[in-house]
Amino acid sequence: MNPEAPAHRQTQTPATALPDRLRGILLPFPTPFGPDGDFDPRLLSANIERWNRTGISGFVALGSTGERVHLDERERERVVETARAATAEGLAFVVGVGEQSTRATVAEAARAARAGADALLVITPHFYRGAMNGEALRAHFEAVADASPVPLVLYNIPQNTGVALAPETVARLGEHPNVVGLKDSSGDVASLMETLRLVGTPRADFAVTTGHAGVLHPALAAGADGAILAAACVVPRLCVAVFEAARAGDHERARALQRRLAPVARAVTVGYGIGGLKAALDLLGYHGGPVRAPLRPPDEGARREIEKLLKEVDSSQ
Amino acid sequence: MNPEAPAHRQTQTPATALPDRLRGILLPFPTPFGPDGDFDPRLLSANIERWNRTGISGFVALGSTGERVHLDERERERVVETARAATAEGLAFVVGVGEQSTRATVAEAARAARAGADALLVITPHFYRGAMNGEALRAHFEAVADASPVPLVLYNIPQNTGVALAPETVARLGEHPNVVGLKDSSGDVASLMETLRLVGTPRADFAVTTGHAGVLHPALAAGADGAILAAACVVPRLCVAVFEAARAGDHERARALQRRLAPVARAVTVGYGIGGLKAALDLLGYHGGPVRAPLRPPDEGARREIEKLLKEVDSSQ
Amino acid sequence: MNPEAPAHRQTQTPATALPDRLRGILLPFPTPFGPDGDFDPRLLSANIERWNRTGISGFVALGSTGERVHLDERERERVVETARAATAEGLAFVVGVGEQSTRATVAEAARAARAGADALLVITPHFYRGAMNGEALRAHFEAVADASPVPLVLYNIPQNTGVALAPETVARLGEHPNVVGLKDSSGDVASLMETLRLVGTPRADFAVTTGHAGVLHPALAAGADGAILAAACVVPRLCVAVFEAARAGDHERARALQRRLAPVARAVTVGYGIGGLKAALDLLGYHGGPVRAPLRPPDEGARREIEKLLKEVDSSQ
Amino acid sequence: MNPEAPAHRQTQTPATALPDRLRGILLPFPTPFGPDGDFDPRLLSANIERWNRTGISGFVALGSTGERVHLDERERERVVETARAATAEGLAFVVGVGEQSTRATVAEAARAARAGADALLVITPHFYRGAMNGEALRAHFEAVADASPVPLVLYNIPQNTGVALAPETVARLGEHPNVVGLKDSSGDVASLMETLRLVGTPRADFAVTTGHAGVLHPALAAGADGAILAAACVVPRLCVAVFEAARAGDHERARALQRRLAPVARAVTVGYGIGGLKAALDLLGYHGGPVRAPLRPPDEGARREIEKLLKEVDSSQ
Repeated sequence: MNPEAPAHRQTQTPATALPDRLRGILLPFPTPFGPDGDFDPRLLSANIERWNRTGISGFVALGSTGERVHLDERERERVVETARAATAEGLAFVVGVGEQSTRATVAEAARAARAGADALLVITPHFYRGAMNGEALRAHFEAVADASPVPLVLYNIPQNTGVALAPETVARLGEHPNVVGLKDSSGDVASLMETLRLVGTPRADFAVTTGHAGVLHPALAAGADGAILAAACVVPRLCVAVFEAARAGDHERARALQRRLAPVARAVTVGYGIGGLKAALDLLGYHGGPVRAPLRPPDEGARREIEKLLKEVDSSQ
Repeated sequence: MNPEAPAHRQTQTPATALPDRLRGILLPFPTPFGPDGDFDPRLLSANIERWNRTGISGFVALGSTGERVHLDERERERVVETARAATAEGLAFVVGVGEQSTRATVAEAARAARAGADALLVITPHFYRGAMNGEALRAHFEAVADASPVPLVLYNIPQNTGVALAPETVARLGEHPNVVGLKDSSGDVASLMETLRLVGTPRADFAVTTGHAGVLHPALAAGADGAILAAACVVPRLCVAVFEAARAGDHERARALQRRLAPVARAVTVGYGIGGLKAALDLLGYHGGPVRAPLRPPDEGARREIEKLLKEVDSSQ
Repeated sequence: MNPEAPAHRQTQTPATALPDRLRGILLPFPTPFGPDGDFDPRLLSANIERWNRTGISGFVALGSTGERVHLDERERERVVETARAATAEGLAFVVGVGEQSTRATVAEAARAARAGADALLVITPHFYRGAMNGEALRAHFEAVADASPVPLVLYNIPQNTGVALAPETVARLGEHPNVVGLKDSSGDVASLMETLRLVGTPRADFAVTTGHAGVLHPALAAGADGAILAAACVVPRLCVAVFEAARAGDHERARALQRRLAPVARAVTVGYGIGGLKAALDLLGYHGGPVRAPLRPPDEGARREIEKLLKEVDSSQ
Repeated sequence: MNPEAPAHRQTQTPATALPDRLRGILLPFPTPFGPDGDFDPRLLSANIERWNRTGISGFVALGSTGERVHLDERERERVVETARAATAEGLAFVVGVGEQSTRATVAEAARAARAGADALLVITPHFYRGAMNGEALRAHFEAVADASPVPLVLYNIPQNTGVALAPETVARLGEHPNVVGLKDSSGDVASLMETLRLVGTPRADFAVTTGHAGVLHPALAAGADGAILAAACVVPRLCVAVFEAARAGDHERARALQRRLAPVARAVTVGYGIGGLKAALDLLGYHGGPVRAPLRPPDEGARREIEKLLKEVDSSQ
């Protein structure tokens, strides 16, 4: 850590407050586009107002599901401002950032903080994946953490990036006062547990979350603090119910709920992707809408499969 | 399933009895060699007699940790006979089998059954991995299950074989009356959970076990029935304690025990391999001894690291 | 292909002219930064003026080696304008483009064409790699090809992107009149040969180039038309000599030259990365300079190794 | 190397003689089974007598294509004896060996030599792939080379084994007087070239061969000495023609022939596997016959595709 981190950090809400808001289910929402393919803020506001009342703990704007990489700088700002305004008080509001260079990531972090982020979900750089060893990643995240006006949540999603944050690297970065958590979307539970052990959870000032709905319950059983789940956009109450059951120590119930969650979670993530997730939202009366190319909408068979899965899971909503 | 399966199956102990004996911790023990490199049955008997009193539920002879692939046919028979004789009454006695061809696997299964196996742990064929699709694997296991005098436990260990048994394939094979369980060593908890869901656990006639100590607790929390763990040769009581805590619903305790288990489990498996596991046994007063080349013994630094980890974990034994 | 492609394409230099300029060695040059980390156009001009006289066939601005992903939009434009102005007449001038969305890629293509690109090297979208099947990739490239004022060269670099362009997809896209070539950096010669076969080379209107110096000679022997090689920034004459020997059918000489090329090519690409390549340029009197974080400069040992390799290869320059 | 290598090596044909017999096309033939699934020596003799007259340089018994892993010890001996007797004078006769343990590999090498092998193709051990680093592999091959009555050819086939022999390891082993060659089936031409460079080819006492028909011509262009190709069982004369053209420096012709070779080679290897190769032999009047389970015969569509490809390539036979 750079001891010359900006003084304004002292005047922020203490970083230790943020991790508590990660101890629940957060929604990394998709970005709704209108028929013309442009971002439509009214659709997003409507979605968020409905999600506000589902028991979730917060939102993540501009995550992988939010097609952040498909949006230009101005669109990103509008998504953040729109979502920030619609988010209910008391809910965490996290914004996804992360360019390939450290300098651009620092600049983006400043913009996102200005636009209202409580914290930033910072993805690993990855285009030069062969060079992204632990040392390079640590230096990158420390530089961003030193500069950022708001705290960071590290984002590990090797299935998209080809870069995995090692538990040792997370533990080292967890010593930085402006790094308050991890979203681990890898689904690698052994690695998640090693991270929990090395980070020394439970900790007041750091929260480990899973980003893989397929291992929500076992991750919680293993000590994860919360979850940031694309599938939770579709079945928020079911995800919250798994979390609550696990927190209450009722693992039999958590296990049964997880089993109901699994097929639909799979369909709207790895199965049919963001197009599938948006189709599911449309079916549920949210505003899903189109994806941007080169992503493609689900075909008719996929839509029917999604519809069937939603009906099956319906009684739990 | 072949309707012409051998009639003698009807006269066996019902297959449904075996799965219950997999609901605990089983030890896939290493094969002890003397200073001349030959199998020494006395060392094995002594080890087993000591493990008998650790609270475990059974043994697996000739698993991956047992260097089965380093033993000739006569040695395999002697290992099985020795271990069978030393195993305490009431403990499950499973024998690892599995050649690349179906016909050789059937023959080996018959030999292992004759030598006293309660059940067989049958590894996926893998040399022609590109051809090992679900259909080929299903036909293989069904043919072996049809012919085997004793029930089968499917063995999925893609990190060694390059072949993964899909949850759908396991579920299909789980309908065969002579297939009574799965050992999943992949460590892929999402896949394990999908298997549990498709197999329809809990089931009286089928047990799903994990073979990856690094995910023991989350696998149990997710509904796994038991575990077959190389690390349990070194820390049997600790593994049993994790199992008992999880079974009792005390997941906080299970989580704390798992955290103590993790470093030593890692060291004697992926860290330092079978040589490391045998060195750990030597340090604990068991008979570990040498590995067969091309495996290599741990170097001095590795031995010291193992010794340190064993001391740290000692109070829990 | 979209039959409603913009009419201005008819007024361009015929696309068939471009492929011929890919039949040689092209340099995907790095972007030189000054001590303050900002792009310094004078350094780039000086480099290009020197490379102009090495026998190469052209340049690629803003390729992977050009740290395109580390540059903002304004910097990219300046790099293109600077390099365009310095490039000797008759040399090909290709510009790397490619955002994750089709719409942003189309916009970037227009900007690059306006800034003076003869052709565009368009990388596969890759953040949503799980969704990048042949159909999605084909639709993406066709949309960009339909819209682009200048012809496209497809860019396959799976080691960075996790996405591989299949030979069948390249062949299909090769039917589009505004797609004039491929840069294949995979190093997979079997796949390159299948591409050559399906594309039907030699063809006047399509050039297949390799982007992997380690297979330069065998790729040429197999029928590749040219190469776009980062290593050629360091040893341009040696790369040109391999090309000329292969073109002349003197494969014994090409093989001997390739053997001299291999160690240095490896060091300045996979070995020590862009930092290593820039260090090599500094040693040779070009302007290499720093890389942008999170990339890191080579350490002292790496620099010495690079220096040694450059001395060994020197006589061939 | 062990300086106490057996004295009888001095009385053998000098190891330097063997490499010359690898400078051509060798056939790693499949093992023909009769309708009962048993090995039928008459079918093998008939095949070999026909292949003897195709211009090839030799045979490999019990390679991957020979379903060695599906044969028991007695069957292996009969295959070797049968093939040895049928092999025309002057052709190389190599036998595939390699168990997981060093001691069993040494024993198998002795048996194969007694049964008439000129040289042994020794596969990398691989079940404990995580432990198979360069040091372990080197010690293994050196021990086998020290003990073997006949010289060794190293066998690298990572697509089946998950273990890759590094160029550095091959180069080190190439200093052993009883190691006379490499079969590299990886298809990784960059790695093959690095091996050629480090081994220091051309060398009288060591031959580097490719085992991947898809890169036959580029491998030869890069300096490979010969090839051991499953596809050559189906199209021996075409493979020999590629080799002869490349040796004569007529790379244009080699390239054209390679292009005809590619589709059929792919179909009878990665495409439809050993079952496909045997079906192709049946169509050509050789004795292909069934594969052993869990391998499966090609389905009707695959057979038709193979038949079509054989007709297309026919004029070159």
